[in-house]
Amino acid sequence: MKVDSWEQVAARKRKAVLDSIPAEWIIPDSLLPPETQDDVMTFPETSGWFTAEELAITNSEVLELLPKLASGELKSETVTRAFCKRAAAAHQLTNCLSETCFKRGLEMARQLDAHLAQTGKPVGPLHGLPISLKDNFNLRGLDATVGFVSHVGAPATEDATLAQLLQAKAGAVFYVKTNVPTAMMMPETVNNVMGRTVNPRNRRLTPGGSSGGEAALVAFGGSPLGVGTDIGGSLRIPAACTGLFTLKASFGRFPALGCRSGMPGQEAVQSINGPLARTLGDLEAYCAAVVGAEPWHDADPRCLPIPWRSSPSSSRKLKIAVMWDDGMALPTPPVTRALRQTAAALRAAGHELVEWSSRDQAEGLSLLNRMFVADGGRAILEEIAHTGEPWILPAMQAYQEAAAAGVAAELGTRDLWRLHAERQAYQKRHLDRWNAAGIDALLCPTTPYASVENGKFRHVGYTGVYNVLDQSCISFPTGIKVDAALDKALDMASYQPMSEVDKMIQSECEFSLNLRSTGPRLPVDHAEAVHGMPINLQLVGRRLPDVWENSETQLIPFAFRLEEEKVVAMTRVVLDALS
Amino acid sequence: MKVDSWEQVAARKRKAVLDSIPAEWIIPDSLLPPETQDDVMTFPETSGWFTAEELAITNSEVLELLPKLASGELKSETVTRAFCKRAAAAHQLTNCLSETCFKRGLEMARQLDAHLAQTGKPVGPLHGLPISLKDNFNLRGLDATVGFVSHVGAPATEDATLAQLLQAKAGAVFYVKTNVPTAMMMPETVNNVMGRTVNPRNRRLTPGGSSGGEAALVAFGGSPLGVGTDIGGSLRIPAACTGLFTLKASFGRFPALGCRSGMPGQEAVQSINGPLARTLGDLEAYCAAVVGAEPWHDADPRCLPIPWRSSPSSSRKLKIAVMWDDGMALPTPPVTRALRQTAAALRAAGHELVEWSSRDQAEGLSLLNRMFVADGGRAILEEIAHTGEPWILPAMQAYQEAAAAGVAAELGTRDLWRLHAERQAYQKRHLDRWNAAGIDALLCPTTPYASVENGKFRHVGYTGVYNVLDQSCISFPTGIKVDAALDKALDMASYQPMSEVDKMIQSECEFSLNLRSTGPRLPVDHAEAVHGMPINLQLVGRRLPDVWENSETQLIPFAFRLEEEKVVAMTRVVLDALS
Repeated sequence: MKVDSWEQVAARKRKAVLDSIPAEWIIPDSLLPPETQDDVMTFPETSGWFTAEELAITNSEVLELLPKLASGELKSETVTRAFCKRAAAAHQLTNCLSETCFKRGLEMARQLDAHLAQTGKPVGPLHGLPISLKDNFNLRGLDATVGFVSHVGAPATEDATLAQLLQAKAGAVFYVKTNVPTAMMMPETVNNVMGRTVNPRNRRLTPGGSSGGEAALVAFGGSPLGVGTDIGGSLRIPAACTGLFTLKASFGRFPALGCRSGMPGQEAVQSINGPLARTLGDLEAYCAAVVGAEPWHDADPRCLPIPWRSSPSSSRKLKIAVMWDDGMALPTPPVTRALRQTAAALRAAGHELVEWSSRDQAEGLSLLNRMFVADGGRAILEEIAHTGEPWILPAMQAYQEAAAAGVAAELGTRDLWRLHAERQAYQKRHLDRWNAAGIDALLCPTTPYASVENGKFRHVGYTGVYNVLDQSCISFPTGIKVDAALDKALDMASYQPMSEVDKMIQSECEFSLNLRSTGPRLPVDHAEAVHGMPINLQLVGRRLPDVWENSETQLIPFAFRLEEEKVVAMTRVVLDALS
Repeated sequence: MKVDSWEQVAARKRKAVLDSIPAEWIIPDSLLPPETQDDVMTFPETSGWFTAEELAITNSEVLELLPKLASGELKSETVTRAFCKRAAAAHQLTNCLSETCFKRGLEMARQLDAHLAQTGKPVGPLHGLPISLKDNFNLRGLDATVGFVSHVGAPATEDATLAQLLQAKAGAVFYVKTNVPTAMMMPETVNNVMGRTVNPRNRRLTPGGSSGGEAALVAFGGSPLGVGTDIGGSLRIPAACTGLFTLKASFGRFPALGCRSGMPGQEAVQSINGPLARTLGDLEAYCAAVVGAEPWHDADPRCLPIPWRSSPSSSRKLKIAVMWDDGMALPTPPVTRALRQTAAALRAAGHELVEWSSRDQAEGLSLLNRMFVADGGRAILEEIAHTGEPWILPAMQAYQEAAAAGVAAELGTRDLWRLHAERQAYQKRHLDRWNAAGIDALLCPTTPYASVENGKFRHVGYTGVYNVLDQSCISFPTGIKVDAALDKALDMASYQPMSEVDKMIQSECEFSLNLRSTGPRLPVDHAEAVHGMPINLQLVGRRLPDVWENSETQLIPFAFRLEEEKVVAMTRVVLDALS
């Protein structure tokens, strides 16, 4: 029996995804922007291909759509159809999808519409809302290749627990899954199955990774709300590259079972899933819906019984630490400018700002990297070996190096335990430092870049450390945009780089600033390439808890008990029965 | 330089612990019970060696002592001194201690008394209460050998985080640490440093393990409240063998840093610490004090921000599943009788009882055992190799076998990840089953035994499965005692054993029932050996959460916010400041 080459398998998969788009949602050749057009964000508004209603719907915030869907003012089928079309366009322009299930989405939408018409009640807080999912969330009947050719043609037999919850309890509708890098272990979005996803704001740039397909789709307006995952920055980096909001929660807030992992069973640092949204309100609506469904009860036994409480506004002034750089890679000039402006604005608003040294960052990143390759890259190597697909470099260099070193590079359990113990001590030291500083939050870059040219994303230190620490982080657009006139590169003749990677980052930045591009697809000025791109920053909170406002006591309904207390109470019942 | 043999090192350590007891607390030879006296529980009351005040104090419940200590009616120094003396007696009769720090305890007690006299306020909810700690909790200046000769003479440089919290925030006093088995990985309490701890209710019997020194001490009245740890039953088994209450919480309620582990960095199944107490009220007072100190804030970054809420009494009837056996080892007759009586009493009180099949138990125990020896026993092997101390058999057989198989038996990271994935799937299946059954709790044995003769504890399946599942469990004394007249052994001629270990357990039980003892220290009738022993059962709840009473809403002060919510709110502050 002749076995297909990996190229054949991958080509067939790409064609299948494209063929799954109905003809009516294929952009007519006459309207298709040329490949040399970098910014395709204007396409929906300017092409004339979308109706006014389609534009109105897909340009709406989630918080605008939800009440209309819940009241029946908007039919879920109408909304779903509009997002299907815009998602199809997004894919044709940025290669952001990995699967579609338009039929399922529309069928589900009709059921939801019927339910509302019959009962007068929405199914849940996201009733009728289409939600896009990152490729690794299993949906029945669809692949979840996470970029491995070896996983093509192995459709999931049931939905991921999060998808089950979103559909059954929140009333959401699924219609597409989105592209990721191989094993979801790169800060860009490229793999041998679906190829590369590009940034709709500028197709020369990466939308980041690993949730880059999701970010490209949401930024383009092809999804009102997307769900991605983050184990080293995979939500925050794409949010930053595309100007979206995301939350990387601490582990245990959102259910995570039933997903494909690039490193199944790896627990030393936990993958977190969460929303990519166009507004903070949309983000919070998602969190409230998922946590409000009490996932700890039945979805995932690792979830924590911590309800989602929307925070009231508070007049208390915050104490915020600012980390200007992580000691490994200086932010590029636009990011530093945004950080300065943000810090100044906070200070002007009366908040206390303090400096935060980068002294813990290198150790945190080293811990993360060692945990990622603790198996010597074997989990990934094995998948790649199944089909002989090539490594994607340089992003997967760490794995390739581990693989080249062979099984000898795999840690034994004893050494992995030592790594855990190191991580525990690191977490405790950082907590003590945080408490000693008495800060509410830490403000810092999400990445050294606003975004960066495809293939040049070099550093995940700003995000990865907070996965090791399991601290809550939000990456948010500051509203400040790159301005090639303001954001001058460093003078490399006098700059002392912090590290090899810093040298590379700053040189690439300087190179492009001093060398005008000579053609549309040739290397261009970095600041010009990213000119106009939104700039995100990262706000880091503690792990799960904190005393938010000691002085404020608020009465809330308390309708659940915690388990240890329950066991005590039930034992009392047993003792009473015995006595 | 001549290196001392392990025997010399151990003998010196045992002597040092004994020498640390002041002469006034050494039991006079004339009063010392003969070695052939099995039950030494009566010693404090009958020897005449204790004053009436000492007896009154050390016989008191914690809930009786606390208000007196807080008001100054009882001085902490007086209380501490009484418990020091009774603990010293316990050690001389059962070999239950591993370290003493009487001087620190009395000094601390005097400071607390002075604080109260000066300020009129107790330091915390356990003000002035002596608390005993299992050997693995670091206390500055004391060894934490966890039974390894290699760790003798390596005193801790700072207190464990739990000890810091108990002293600084709760006002507790430390005066002794208690014996454990080697590496704390046996259900009895015996090691090459301190030797074997025996059960004060019957010195032919084991107090269980690994928190057996603690259980012997608390049962004897040498401590009002002890803290142990549990990774496979190490709190629940000793509680069962000595008739105490214990809670094995889910991971994250109590801080766990700064402790000596037998397997440092092992996280596939987490060690939990918790109280050993004489009453349920005492147990809960401890939990409320520790969780009330908000350990998540500064003690241990892995702690969960879940306050301790005492459960109100409820009139709702419970649905309780009963597991009569675990399919691997039938409970001995007294335990089955207690389980029947308890189930009947619950049914009579109007609760719904359903059967719970043992079908998941063997898989859970197998997962636990594989996680324990995932390093091929290397962590333990290395410690033993340092001094050449011998293995203690048969209890450590699994480790010896792993060691014999050499490093080949150590899992690589990739295989450990596979084991994690298996455990995740197992946890989810069990959760689904629990929800499908709609039960509030599971009632089952804690061990197959009431207690058992030293060296014969054969099975930890009833407890270990709930460590894998991270479910909350209480082991509690039923008030029912072994009655040799009622608790007849099975007829082994007709009994079909469930397993090899079951055959051994039941045979040892039958053997002794059919063969009267011929001398005081020879093998005796099991039922006679355990005659009069308390019988504990285990009540298993869910992991952390559950909806305890949907219909009941209660208003409580809500003075903290959760972190994800806080980050959202703080981001809003940042955005406001920027706009």
